[in-house]
This record gives sequence, C-alpha cells and structure tokens, in this order.
Amino acid sequence: MTIDRTTLRWNGWGPVKQENPLPADAPQWAWIEEALGVSRLPSTPAVALHDIRLPHSRLSEDVLGKLRGICGDNQVRTDDYERAFHARGKSYHDLLYLRAGKLDMAPDAVVYPRSADEVLAIVKLCAEEDIALIPFGGGSSVVGGVNAMPKSLGGAVLTLDTTLMTRIIQIDKVSMTARIEAGIYGPHLEEQLQSHGVTLGHYPQSFPLSTLGGWIAARGAGQQSNRYGKAEKWLVSAKLATPKGFWTTEATPASAAGPNLNQLVAGSEGTLGVIVEATVKIHDLPERKDYRGYLFKTFAQGVEAARRINHAEIPVAMVRLSDAPETYFFQALSSSGSGGLKSKLQRMYLKMKGFDDAPCLMLIGHEGSKETVVWAQEQTEATCKRLGALALGTGPGKRWYHGRFNGPAVRDPMMDRGLGVETLETSTRWSNIANLHEKVVGAITDAIAANVPEQNARGIVMAHVSHSYPDGASLYFTFVFPRQLDREVEQWQAIKRAASDTIEMNGGTISHHHGVGADHVPWLGEEKGEIGMSILKATKREMDPKGVMNPGKVLG
Amino acid sequence: MTIDRTTLRWNGWGPVKQENPLPADAPQWAWIEEALGVSRLPSTPAVALHDIRLPHSRLSEDVLGKLRGICGDNQVRTDDYERAFHARGKSYHDLLYLRAGKLDMAPDAVVYPRSADEVLAIVKLCAEEDIALIPFGGGSSVVGGVNAMPKSLGGAVLTLDTTLMTRIIQIDKVSMTARIEAGIYGPHLEEQLQSHGVTLGHYPQSFPLSTLGGWIAARGAGQQSNRYGKAEKWLVSAKLATPKGFWTTEATPASAAGPNLNQLVAGSEGTLGVIVEATVKIHDLPERKDYRGYLFKTFAQGVEAARRINHAEIPVAMVRLSDAPETYFFQALSSSGSGGLKSKLQRMYLKMKGFDDAPCLMLIGHEGSKETVVWAQEQTEATCKRLGALALGTGPGKRWYHGRFNGPAVRDPMMDRGLGVETLETSTRWSNIANLHEKVVGAITDAIAANVPEQNARGIVMAHVSHSYPDGASLYFTFVFPRQLDREVEQWQAIKRAASDTIEMNGGTISHHHGVGADHVPWLGEEKGEIGMSILKATKREMDPKGVMNPGKVLG
Repeated sequence: MTIDRTTLRWNGWGPVKQENPLPADAPQWAWIEEALGVSRLPSTPAVALHDIRLPHSRLSEDVLGKLRGICGDNQVRTDDYERAFHARGKSYHDLLYLRAGKLDMAPDAVVYPRSADEVLAIVKLCAEEDIALIPFGGGSSVVGGVNAMPKSLGGAVLTLDTTLMTRIIQIDKVSMTARIEAGIYGPHLEEQLQSHGVTLGHYPQSFPLSTLGGWIAARGAGQQSNRYGKAEKWLVSAKLATPKGFWTTEATPASAAGPNLNQLVAGSEGTLGVIVEATVKIHDLPERKDYRGYLFKTFAQGVEAARRINHAEIPVAMVRLSDAPETYFFQALSSSGSGGLKSKLQRMYLKMKGFDDAPCLMLIGHEGSKETVVWAQEQTEATCKRLGALALGTGPGKRWYHGRFNGPAVRDPMMDRGLGVETLETSTRWSNIANLHEKVVGAITDAIAANVPEQNARGIVMAHVSHSYPDGASLYFTFVFPRQLDREVEQWQAIKRAASDTIEMNGGTISHHHGVGADHVPWLGEEKGEIGMSILKATKREMDPKGVMNPGKVLG
Repeated sequence: MTIDRTTLRWNGWGPVKQENPLPADAPQWAWIEEALGVSRLPSTPAVALHDIRLPHSRLSEDVLGKLRGICGDNQVRTDDYERAFHARGKSYHDLLYLRAGKLDMAPDAVVYPRSADEVLAIVKLCAEEDIALIPFGGGSSVVGGVNAMPKSLGGAVLTLDTTLMTRIIQIDKVSMTARIEAGIYGPHLEEQLQSHGVTLGHYPQSFPLSTLGGWIAARGAGQQSNRYGKAEKWLVSAKLATPKGFWTTEATPASAAGPNLNQLVAGSEGTLGVIVEATVKIHDLPERKDYRGYLFKTFAQGVEAARRINHAEIPVAMVRLSDAPETYFFQALSSSGSGGLKSKLQRMYLKMKGFDDAPCLMLIGHEGSKETVVWAQEQTEATCKRLGALALGTGPGKRWYHGRFNGPAVRDPMMDRGLGVETLETSTRWSNIANLHEKVVGAITDAIAANVPEQNARGIVMAHVSHSYPDGASLYFTFVFPRQLDREVEQWQAIKRAASDTIEMNGGTISHHHGVGADHVPWLGEEKGEIGMSILKATKREMDPKGVMNPGKVLG
C-alpha cells in the first residue's frame, strides 16, 4: 500500500493529477502582482521529461547484476522516470533544477529493497564498490537531503528507495509503543495504527508524502508537536543497516547507561546508515480535538501567550502564531484576492476593540481526553484573553485543520508564473524570538529587494511560530518573490545566504525541523563548534570509513 | 558557600557530626535481626584514618609545582584527609574498601580550580603529562564514577574537585533558563535560584551532597522528575574543558541541525572532559505542592495506576510506588520495630476493605499553579480509586517529603553492625515491569541466600517505581543483608552480578539514573551493542586520545 511513483510529480508536489488551487483565471493573481510590485507575471512552465536527456548510467552491468541478485530484477530501476523522480528532493532550490530539465544529478539506478536484510546487502555492496548510496523515503526533503550526490565528481550513485518496507511489526498497547518498518508513508502508518485505536500523532505538512524513516533521519516535527513531540522525542529505538552491519539502538524509556545514541540517529540523515525500522511512542486516539483561533494586537503579545502556555504546562497539542503579514496574506489568499480581513464590518469591529490593521492570528489546538481538553482549553483561552486577544471560536481552527497539508500545492502554479516560493525555519530561546524574527524578516526582505527582476518589485515575507518549548520556540519563514529568470539559482543563493547568516549571527539554529541536507552544511560548523564537528566526523569515519552513505549531507 | 570537606565523612554519608538515626539501643535492631534470620549482629566499626597509611604520591614535584602555578598553592592538596575523601565515591562497594582502610586507590593529589580557565589548564597538563584526571563534584557516585583509577597500574592520578566553581552566571526569566557553574551543590544552587523566584526542581536523594555537574555527567534524576525531568531533559547546553580545548554544545530549544551533542555530554561521566558550566531549564517556584498517599492491594494495580496517569498526561511531579516488602519495611523501620502497619485497628479496617497483609504504598506529588494542582490531583486520585486504591490523604506524603533525603544516613550505622545495604536501579517498558521486578527480586534474593554468613540467614529485598514515562518506568531495588565478613567484596560481587545479569537478560537498562561508572562497565556493551560501543569509543579517542579523562568509567 505504498505510492506508485508514476502517480506522483517528479518535478513538483503531490499527485500528477490534482486540482490546481491557483488556475490561470484565479482572482488572486492580480492581487499577487500588486503585492509584489511587478507589472505582469510571466509564464514559466517546467520542461517536460521527454524533452530531457539524462546522463548515461555510471553503474556497471556487473553491479546492476549484483543488485538484481539481491532484490530481484523488478526492484532495480534505471528508467528515466525513476531516475528523474529520485534526482533531488522538493526544495525550491531543487525545483529550479528539475523544472529547468537539469538532471545531471539523477542517480544511476534506483533500488527498492523489501526487507532489512536486502538493505544491508545493498549497503555492503556500495561500500565494497565505492558507490554513493542515497537513502530515499518520500523524497520530500526541502534542504537537499536526498539529492543524488556522488562521492566525488563522476562517481556512481545509487538511490535506495525504502517505500516498499511498510510493515507494522508490533504494537504494544501497554507500553504504548509500536515497531514499524521505516519506509511507510504517513497516511498508511496512521491508517494502520488508528485501526488499533492508537496514533503516532506526527503530522508534518509533508505528511501525505513523507515516511517514518525520513521523519527520524531529519528530526522532523509534526504540527501537533507540543503534544506528540518532535521525531527525536517520540523515537524510542532505531534499527539501521550500516556499512558495519545492523545497529539497533537502546530501547529503554530513560537510562543513565552512558550517552543516548538514539539522539545520534535522529538527525543523521542517512549518513551513518539506512534506518530500516523504528520503535516509536504511540498514544490513544484523542477522544476530543479542539482547534480555535485568537486574534492578537501584536506579534509580541501572541509570543507572550505562547510562552505563558508553555510555562504554565497546560496540555496543548499546537500553538501556532502568524505574524501580521502572514495573517494578512493567508486571509487575502483564501478570500479570493479581496485583501485583508473579510468584511468592512469585521474591520470596524476590530478597530473598536483596539486592533489596528495588522492583527496576528493564533491557532491553538487541544487533543486528548474530554476532561483534559475542556479544562486545558479554558486555561489557554484565559491566558490569551488576559493578553488582550480576541477569541474567534472554532471556525478558524476548523478551516486551518481542514487544509493543513495543502500549503505546498500552491507552489507549483506559482512557479509556473515566474514566482519563487521558499520557506526556512529556525528556533531560539524566548528572550530572543522578537529579535530573531525582526532580523531574519529584514534580511530576507533586503536580499529580495537587492535581487529582483524589475525596479520596484519586492517580496512578501512572513513568519509564524509553530512549535514551542519551555525555553523557546521555532520561527518559520515563508517568502514569495518574483524570480530573476536569468539567474534563478544565484538569486536564491543570495537570499538563502542572507537569511542563514542572519540566523547564525543572532542565536538561532540553522534548522528546527527541515534538517541540514546539502543546503545547510555551510552553517553547521559554526553551530556545532569545532569540537562538536570533530565528534560528528569521528562518528562518521567509524561507521562509514569509505564515505559512501549519503555524501555531501549533514555528516557526509 | 561550598562545603568544607573536613566537615564531611570521608568514609560514610553526610556531615561528620550528625545524629545517628539507629543508635545501639534502637528497638529496630531486634526486628532487623529477626527479619534477616541472624542470631546476633556483630560490631564492625570502620578503621580510623589515622590508623591508615596512604600510598606515596606518584606525582612529581615538577607536576605539583605546575599545578600550584595554575591554581595557587592552597588549591593543591596532598594531605591524607583530602586524598582519602577523594579516593572513591559512596557506593556500598566503595564503603567496603574505605571502612576497611584500603586506600590504595587514593589520588596522588587533589586540585581545587576556581575557574573554567584553570580547569582547562589542568586538563591540558594531565594530557601532556599522561596523568589520569578524575572530575569530582559531590563525590556521591554509587557506581564507582569518581574512583581514583590510574590509566594503568602504577600510573599517577589527580582528582579535580569542582566545588569551588559555584557561580550563577545568568538567569533568563523570559526563556526560563539559567547558566550556572557546574561545581555548585544542590542546596546552594536552589537557595540562589529560589531567591529569584525560580527553581531547577532537581532533587535526587543525594541532593544535599551532589553537584550540578555530577547530575549531568551521570544522567541523574530528581525525585520530581515527572515534572522537572531527568538531567538529560533539563540540560540545555554544557561547556566542557576537554583535552582539545573548551567545548560548548548547542543551546537552541529544539533543532534539526544534525544529531544533538548535549545527549553525548549527559552520561559522559567526565570521560570526555570536565563539565564546567551548564545552561539548564528552570521553573517558577510552584505556587502549591500536594503530596498524598494511596494504598493499593497489589503492586500490579499500583503500576497500572502509574501507567494510566502517564498516558492520560495528567501533570504530576512524582509517582512513587513501593512494592509490598518496601511498604512493610519502611513502616516497620519508622514505627520503631513494632512491625507492619501501625495498629491492629488499622489492619482490621484494611482487611474489611479487601486488603490482605501486603498492601503497596503509592505517593503522588503535584507541584505547580494552584489551578493545575487542584485539577490534576482530582484526576490522579480518581485514577487510583478506580483501581481500588485507598486514599490516605496528605499525611504519608508530608512524612515522606520531610525525610526525603534521609535514606542514606541509615547505611553507616547498619554497616557498623555487620550489615550490607545496597541499591540498584533500572528501567523498562510498562509491559515488562512486572516481569523485571519479579526476576530481579528473585535474583537478588537467591544470590543473598547463596552468600550468607550463617545458615538460615537471608536478605530483605524490596523495590519501588520512582520515575515514570509514557513508555515505561524505573525500578529501584534496595536490599539489606548480613555481611560475610571474611569475603565482603566477593559477596557483593556475587549479588551485583546476579542482579545485573538478570537486568540485562530481561530487557532492563543497566542503570536508570546512577550511571555506569566503573561498576556497570561489564554490562554496557551488551546494552549499546557492538556498533554503539564502537561509536562511543571513537568519540572518546577523538576527544581524549591519550585516555587521561576518568579512566575505567563509561567511555574511559
């Protein structure tokens, strides 16, 4: 019950066949042109696969034969669609290459093992033959984490697609853990768990198109991470196929038996081995879900509410606060280009209540037993109201919940019209949130302004807090800008560099949940420090002395 | 405001001057003799320090001169009391040696640096001169974690006592974090934090005599870990002085920037470097504390209550469940040897309620805001009652809270009367708690029975659950037994080996919060696996190529 690759876009997000959320005649286009200060959005369709010539495979028939011997003939693919599909992940940066038909990074073959033993045999073969091996789950990385990079120029690359390994091996409803094969997609995983009355509760925006192994490898975060935890928190134990053999990490609930090695697996991004199985924490299906909206006069007041909710330890599944531009943007986008809040009447009411034109929307979600949700919802609402927020009821919560995985689908039509759409994220301590928010928005805004295709063009830069902790929170930035069609990659690099340098200089982490991949490697050293990097590199050398596992990524 | 070593027992627990909780005429002795099946408890006083000849110092005058140059003359100690005090930790195993006057493991000198820079200079000197360096905080390790072991037979050993480094460097009340020097003792740390209205909330039983750095190094757990977390959870960032220089770990709240290296520091036990500073999560002082007792008919029902409380995510500070023998033992000990529950009337009431003679006491603690405590207490009480528990009110909770650090003080008088008193702990998943409890109690009981000084003698073996998690809980075993005076160490080894082998074979971790130290090294490899150990050893080689940092311990 995995997803057939031919039903998915190789150079975009989601199914080949899906409704276009922004068709050519959508009223939003005029509003976007105005917001970006561009005279006319160009047509910039992607190059079709049949118009692209892929490089010759660098894998010998001997090696392909050995792979077929391990997995069977049908599990070793060298056709153009499979190679194109596995060339890169789904970042804006990747799409620039894919849409332009630049497939020099396509892997030489793709292999679909069906068991941990087959994976181990493939890993060992690659180590023997000095072939770069790229573990690939849903392929939804937005930081270059699955890009088919060779060990060195001209080297062969094999991509290992895990998505045929989808068994739920064991559910322990007493300990509330489940042991699951790592190639399983989000919906398949939840469908099976929920048929037993339990849930992992990990719902990243990429949920329909990402896998368990990927979530762990990249330290992913689901939208309800306040309740269910980031991947490194719900991970109990992992089994990896490494060049040194199988490695199963410690599985006890908490331990003082030396450093915890699960925390080395989480975030290893396939550079130490392929995650083939994981034991994870599960929860009873929540009796009740309650999602509501609150409107704050300022971003700072919303941040303060999120901070207080965390410090008061009120059980909460999600606290999501958009800054004023994001609140405005999504309202505008969903209200078909009319701009701003829905009606003049609403605006007048808000003005009367002391809100100016730039309110900030917070969505709070509770999940759990009926008693806990009722009690906790009262606590969070009281906290928000004490800070001057307007309670909007469950309407905005329901709307958000309904469309919570739809965000990425607007990117493809935007990219067809000369637009760039990029996101990046970080986290920092509460006392630094306001500063980091301001600095990063400023850096992105300035970098876009310095890299536009026409005078007076500009970007839309917005942000939200989506994951919060006792000591701080994440900041997620989304920005839309007109592409410089003659220097698309350079334009992206300039903006990315400005944002990342600013994050690094202002006490943020280079990634909260997207991972390091290839894109964030230049900033990792500063964050980990010289000694931290030397430990990571020593670990890598120990596990993968020939450096075949996912080269060019976090430890690769 | 640290603690002068000369006021502390070098060969026992706590201040030199303290009231003996079990004086010679205490009525408990007769009850203990009966319970252990021994005819008469012998007198086995410890050897006095002035009767012991310490080995000659193996440190050259040249090295001692360099140390004095780094820290000043007065900070380098070679007198007998300092060397004896720092020879070992405070395990039963250690006390066997210390009380017998066997001080061959005394360090050759003790140095008391007052700054991170001084620590780094000492670490580098030891690496240059190939001298084993033992980081030492409170010295309360019960697993041999601070034992002054040389790199190889005859090698020199220097102990670095951190307890003059006690500054609170910064309190960030917005992010609720504090940066603190690692040598600070528990009471001093809490006194200073609480004067600012905040708390770390880490109260292990060793609290009065252990330090921040030690808690992190050994992955310690405070009694209220459900609320405040184990050390690896409240650790935000650490600064270590290592042979390679200062190493400051990542400090962001949550991150996907590769593996988290704080989780390598927690549990490193001084084998990678000396923890000189840490940033930790703090909390507002709880508005209210509520500690209550519940009596369960069976251990299994109590475990089920603890499990449900965790799965329902009810905010709780502590859930502590004694098995029937422990419930009986502490009742007997505190009721002056009368045995069993306090009065015949009480016993009759319990019998009427369906309790047999072996009820299990659970203590539940709530801390936090008034609203949360009131609400959560109702939830936990309802959970317990649904499982047939008898609510005993706040009396047992208050009594436990009042005496919560006193446990270790009874060990010295017991050791003066030929008794052995030992504890060990583990954790496992909920579905394995009953099995592990039964197997370990059985293994210890049998091993004691096979190693007694006289026929018909036996041990008292008891256990409690003291830390619980969504996926499982800890089990803490305490056992009292008559010593075989002619083979004290061999007797301990036989019991320890039986318990540890049983833990390993039955899915427990070799330690939940005491650490690995020297005592658990033989079982670590099985738990981490061959590849896990190879990673830990590669890390060790990278950081400390000459192996001078705390040799013989977890990674040493």
